[in-house]
Order: sequence, then structure tokens, then C-alpha cells
Amino acid sequence: MKLKRANPAQVMAASFAVTILLGSVLLSQSWAAVPGKKLSFVEALFTATSATCVTGLSVRPPGDFTVAGQVVILLLIQIGGLGVMTFGLFFALLLGGRLSLFGRQMVMSSFSSEPWEDFWPLLRTVMGATVVVETVGGLLLAAAFWPEKGATALAWGFFHAVSAFCNAGFGLHPDSLIPWRGNALVNLTVGLLIIFGGVGFFPVAEVFERWRSDKRRPISLHSRLVLAATGVLLLLGWLGFALLEWKNALAPLPWNEKLWACWLSGITPRTAGFANVDYGSLTPATLIFTMGLMFIGASPGSTGGGIKTTTAAVLLALIAARVRSHRKVTAMGRRFSADTLGGAVTLTLLAAAAVVTGFMAVSLMEHGSSGGLASQSTFLREAFDVVSAFGTVGLSTGITPSLKPGSWLVLIAMMYVGRVGPLTLSVALLGRTPQPEPELAEESVMVG
Amino acid sequence: MKLKRANPAQVMAASFAVTILLGSVLLSQSWAAVPGKKLSFVEALFTATSATCVTGLSVRPPGDFTVAGQVVILLLIQIGGLGVMTFGLFFALLLGGRLSLFGRQMVMSSFSSEPWEDFWPLLRTVMGATVVVETVGGLLLAAAFWPEKGATALAWGFFHAVSAFCNAGFGLHPDSLIPWRGNALVNLTVGLLIIFGGVGFFPVAEVFERWRSDKRRPISLHSRLVLAATGVLLLLGWLGFALLEWKNALAPLPWNEKLWACWLSGITPRTAGFANVDYGSLTPATLIFTMGLMFIGASPGSTGGGIKTTTAAVLLALIAARVRSHRKVTAMGRRFSADTLGGAVTLTLLAAAAVVTGFMAVSLMEHGSSGGLASQSTFLREAFDVVSAFGTVGLSTGITPSLKPGSWLVLIAMMYVGRVGPLTLSVALLGRTPQPEPELAEESVMVG
Ligand SMILES: [K+]
Ligand SMILES: [K+]
Repeated sequence: MKLKRANPAQVMAASFAVTILLGSVLLSQSWAAVPGKKLSFVEALFTATSATCVTGLSVRPPGDFTVAGQVVILLLIQIGGLGVMTFGLFFALLLGGRLSLFGRQMVMSSFSSEPWEDFWPLLRTVMGATVVVETVGGLLLAAAFWPEKGATALAWGFFHAVSAFCNAGFGLHPDSLIPWRGNALVNLTVGLLIIFGGVGFFPVAEVFERWRSDKRRPISLHSRLVLAATGVLLLLGWLGFALLEWKNALAPLPWNEKLWACWLSGITPRTAGFANVDYGSLTPATLIFTMGLMFIGASPGSTGGGIKTTTAAVLLALIAARVRSHRKVTAMGRRFSADTLGGAVTLTLLAAAAVVTGFMAVSLMEHGSSGGLASQSTFLREAFDVVSAFGTVGLSTGITPSLKPGSWLVLIAMMYVGRVGPLTLSVALLGRTPQPEPELAEESVMVG
Repeated sequence: MKLKRANPAQVMAASFAVTILLGSVLLSQSWAAVPGKKLSFVEALFTATSATCVTGLSVRPPGDFTVAGQVVILLLIQIGGLGVMTFGLFFALLLGGRLSLFGRQMVMSSFSSEPWEDFWPLLRTVMGATVVVETVGGLLLAAAFWPEKGATALAWGFFHAVSAFCNAGFGLHPDSLIPWRGNALVNLTVGLLIIFGGVGFFPVAEVFERWRSDKRRPISLHSRLVLAATGVLLLLGWLGFALLEWKNALAPLPWNEKLWACWLSGITPRTAGFANVDYGSLTPATLIFTMGLMFIGASPGSTGGGIKTTTAAVLLALIAARVRSHRKVTAMGRRFSADTLGGAVTLTLLAAAAVVTGFMAVSLMEHGSSGGLASQSTFLREAFDVVSAFGTVGLSTGITPSLKPGSWLVLIAMMYVGRVGPLTLSVALLGRTPQPEPELAEESVMVG
């Protein structure tokens, strides 16, 4: 009983850990790096974690790796991205509401009532759609890279398409997409791949199912929330970046580069991690704003990270209900279940606790017992890296390679916890002991 | 109907605003400051807000004010502190669970069933206890200041006793309590006054009631939670500060000053604001840690700020329940009501949103459109001031007087919102239109 229930969360946590460790061993070999650039074990562990957790933060530029090393990284991205999607599907179908993370009702109403029957056909659909989208994106990017890269344009195109759709954030150029910040085709394709990938499996499957079977079936609350929240966050991201950076990072750029800088910077906090501007040069307000967007991240069922768009929407609905003194929390003509509310709140609290712990841990690793303004001045940049790691985003002000190995270990922990999910991880670690709940009397407490 | 229900929150918000405005007008007069130091209106507004909201942040040293100016400040502290306690009592008794901020059941079980009957006797008890505690504290502090201050020791003693018990944080020395950091009597008295004041009215009243009527009546969940949470936070504060600062701020101090620095630094984030160390010299990890404690703050029904100890305890219980897959959230043999849970979550979310907005606003005011490391380097100090203002704490790394007037306006807004309470303010602003809640079908959403 206990084994059956606790297994999937533990299997997910363990399989990510094993993949990361194997990858670290491979990447720390001398054949993985160009001569004189052999990675220390912590550097290999960081790179393997970043790849497996589809984060994109790096302590070494792409050029430090041999082709063999880059193949290992690609393989880890592939396994990690695939693992996230498969486990997401598995949890949703098998566990339903039991793990209190996914909505059984939503899944059940969309598909058949027997979870196991659906698993393989659904996984095939997910994988099939992924291949189609990535192929189209890869060809478009190859066309964009062609004039510059010639024969290698196809490899560059597909690498970036897979990385963008999976929200991996790994590129082949040390400056991410900054060299192509004026290129409409690159920015448009990468941006759309990120959006499409970050929306997650369920809305895509529902819209596809509806289109294929031509029914007038209503779209689930989940999918409507995802689409609405994603739309709002994109608009917010574009407007926010444009307003905050208009006289700073955007000022020297010609109008088309202005446009594409805003376009990608509003999309990439969906935990994609690609950048076409130097995040180290941004204003503190923009960094705080971007940290907020990265903390929210992408939608459930995608390979994107963060607390997820639906969680943010549920919390917003909760606030709206309380302010209006409503007892029921509603959105779009539906009432949220207690499981959904409790899950959203707990996930957000655990995520906030993890991030603040990360702030303190990196501060300690970097500055130890030295105080004063000198030690306090790099805080925002370190905090940005922590949120980026936890959200498996990959954006950075550029400090990651120069951090101390102790800080790398903190960021590794952040990426792992952020990927597996703090709640899933807690359940995996503590097990699911189905303790009987004692009947206790209710009592109120002043909280304001 | 609407008027009757919405009134107390609106009255509270409005009376604080009026007091602040009147105080600002008085403090901006030339007689309020020593010659050549006349306050600008923004400076006067800042000082009046800080005093009325019992915060203790200041843009001017105490020596810039004439005796008349200091009397105005004292009066504002008195009115503000009294107002907070009276309105807290009023809300608890009159509104009960209706404003969803206070537990009707808890209040009702402790006292009689007719709120109006209880109001005046209770208020007298609160005020009486306050006078007794402040008198004892004032005399102890006067004794401590005697060798140094002579005849003015009594004024100094009572000023600091009132300020400590009310969590006002205002002192008469520009360096707060740093000159007395080795003085056992000063630190012990101030520390105990802060703890006693920060516990709030209800636990004190319950323990007093029990002792007076000699019944074996059980103490309410609220009071047990307050006492337990306060104890845990104090231990955490002492240990955390000692560990994080042992080799930094504490290193050069003799053993007795080490002890008292830890003692007061662990207590003062209960939103008191007194300091016997220079917060500008602390490590970034200590500042983050202190910001966390300040965000939590004191207990409900006290003049302390923050989201409150009980809110933190409720959130912790919520996490514990979800991780164990329990549907009911419990602590100390009692189940929390849905109102308590919803109130705690909403308050925390609104507080977090307010603080992050404050981070961005101050960053914009200070640095505008200039980016890069130079603009990003003061973030932690600015963020510390924002949390300190929102929690009505008054601790600062020392940057407050050198911030731009635009940032002062942001901090003024933070102090006001933090004092009136973001939820109370929302209710006041939106009014309490008792809309009928439509019956909607329940639907789950993936949030992880
Ligand atoms: K990423
Ligand atoms: K204070």
C-alpha cells in the first residue's frame, strides 16, 4: 500500500538523481572537455544538473566541451526533458488527486476513466506533437542560420529548436542569442517555441482532441486558466521590460532590436533561459520584475519550471475571494477544490522558503563572515541566479562561472529541488504514510 | 448595512491618515526643528508616519527637533499605539469572524457573549496593564540611565520604556542603544518590554484572567500558538544572529557585549526597531535572516507589525498537513477554521506582493533608468528598509536619510499599508458589498 502510493514521487526524485550522477561522472572525464579545460567534479555536477533539469545555467562556455561532451549534455537534456513530460503524464493519470498535486477530475473528464489504458497512447501523442513542432522550428531556425553557418546551420537550428521547446535554455554561442538580437526569424521562432512548449501538454492535447473529434466539448478549467494566465504574463512581461529598460538597455538599440529584445525578454522568464540582451546591464527594477516572472514560470505538464501559471492564477482567485468576503474561491465559472487550493498555497510557500534559503546559503558561501556594503553589494545578482536556478530558467547576470564552488552546490540543490518540485520531493522523502486523521474541534485564531 | 459593516476598517484607515497629515503639518513648522534644520513637507510626512505607525525609521536625527517637535512625535506615537490597540480590540470584539481577520470563537469563548458589554472594561484592563508595565520598565531604565544622565534619567527611562513596550523603536540617541550595548539593565529591560509588548493583548489577558479567577480553564489555541511561536522565533533569532555574526560584528566585542548584542538582535525583529549593533556592518546572510524575522513580526493585538506570529504558525501547520496528505490543518489538538486558513494565506500573499512592489518602487526611485552593477549594488540595503517599513520595525542599515524623496514616499506608503494591514485596507477600499455567491461546480486544476 505504502509502496504503491509513494513510489512515483520517489522514482522521479531518484531517477533524476541517478541521471545527474551518471552525467557528472561522464562530464568529469578528460575526453569531455577540450585540452586544458577538464572539468572539476563540482563543475561536471553543475553542468549535468543544469542539463538534466533543463535549466541552462552554466559555469563553462560551450566551447570548453568536445563534441563528445556536447553529445553527453544533449543526451542529458533529452532524458531530462523526456523524464519531466513522462512523469508529469504518469502522475496526472495514475495518481490523480491522491498526490494532491494534479486534478484527477480534470484528467478523467478529458480522457477515459482507466488511467493505464490512456498512458501509452497519450505519451505517443505528446512525443509525436513534440517531434512535429521541433522539426518545423528546427527547419525555420536552420533557414535563419544558413547565411552565416552554411552546412552546420541544420545542427544549430535543431539544437536551438529542441532547447527552446523544452525550455532547456542551452545554446551553442557563449552569448546565448545576443548575436541574433536583430534577426526576426530567430527571435520569432525561438519565442513561439518557448510559448508553445511552456503552455504544457494538457491545453495542447485538449485543443487538439477537440479539433480532431470535432466536438463542441467545453475546454477544461485547467486549460482555460493556463491560456489566460500565459497571455496575461506575456503581456505583462513585454510591457514591463519595455517600460523599465526603455532608457537603459533598449536606448542604444535600433527600433527592430528594441522590438525583439522586448519580445524575447517578456517570453524567456517562462523559464526558457534564452537571452538576447545582457542581463548584467539591466536596472535593478527589471531584475526584480524578471525574478517575479521566473518564480511563477511556465504551466504544469510542460518542461518549464517555477511554481506554475495555474498556481499564480489560483492564488489570485483566492485573494479576490477573500477581499470580497466570499467563502468559495472561483474563476471562470468554476469553483476550485480544496485540494487545488491547498496544493497551490503549499507549493508557493515551500518554493518561497527554498528560494530565501538559497539567498542565505549563497550569501554565506560567497561572503562567509565578512559584512558591510562590500559583501552586501552583489546580493541582487546572487539572488537572481538563485531564482533562475530554482525556476530552472537559466538566465543570469553573468556571475555564475565566478561564484565559489560552495555556491555552485547551492545552485545545484536549487535546480534539483526546483525541477522535482518541493512538494513532490517532500512527499518522496517523507513517504505517504496514510495516518488516520484525528477528529479535532475547530478553533479560530487571529492572524491579522 | 454596508455602512455598519464596512465602517470600522474604513474608520481605522482614515483616522491613521488624518493623524499622519495633522502631524506632518505640525512637524513641518519652523518651531518644530532647531534653527536651520526646518523639515521639508516630505521629511515631516515621513517622521509623522513613522511615529504614528510606531515604526521608528527616521530621515532626521533626534537632535534636529526642538522640545516642541519631540513632544509632537511623542504624541503621535501615543495616539498611534493607542489607536492600534483600541482598533485591534474593537475589531476582535465587534466584527469577530466577519472581517475574517479575527477569530470570533476565540474571543467569545474568552469573554462574555455580548461584544459591547466587554469593550470598555477590556480597554481599561489593557490600558491599566500597559501603564503598570511601562511604569516598572521606566523606573528600571531610569535607574540604569541615572549615573550618566542624572536628573534627565527619568525622562529618558520613561521615553524608552514606552517606545519599547509599544514597539515604536524611537530613541533619544542618534545611535539607538549602541552606546549601552554592554549595559545589562538597559538591554534586559528593553528586551523584556519588547517581548511582553509584542505578545499582544489576548494571551496576557487570558493568563491574567486565569490567574485572577483561579480557574483551571484551558488557554485558547490563539494564546498557546502565540506563546509557542514567539518562543521559537526568539530562540531562532538569538541562535541565528550568534552563528551568522560570530566572526563579523560580534568578533571585536567583549563577552558581555557579545551576549547583549545577540539578546537584543534576536528580539528586536519582533518589529521593535531598537538596535545595539550597526546593522550596516552585518553580513548579507544576517540581513536576509533578519528580514525574514521582521516580515513575520509580532503577535496580533500588539502594537508590533509584520504578518504576525500566528499567521506564520498557521502556514507552517498548513504545509505540515499537505506534506502528510492530511485534509485538515491542525495544531495543538485543534483544527483551524477555513476562515483562519484563508485569512492567513491572503494576508501573507498581499504582504509579499506589497514588499516586492516596494523593492521595485524604491529601486526605480533611486536608480531610475540606470542599470549595471553600480545601480544593483545597494539593493539589499534598500530591500531591508522596505521590509523594515512594511513591518513597522524601524531597523535600518543607515541609508534612510540619504534616500531620495521619492523613496521616502514609497517607505511612507509601506509603513501606512503595513500598519493598517493590507487585508483591512483592501476591505476598507473595496467596501463590504455582500454579493450573493453563485453556486458553481467544483473543478480541479494542476498546480505543481
Ligand atoms: K531553462
Ligand atoms: K517599530
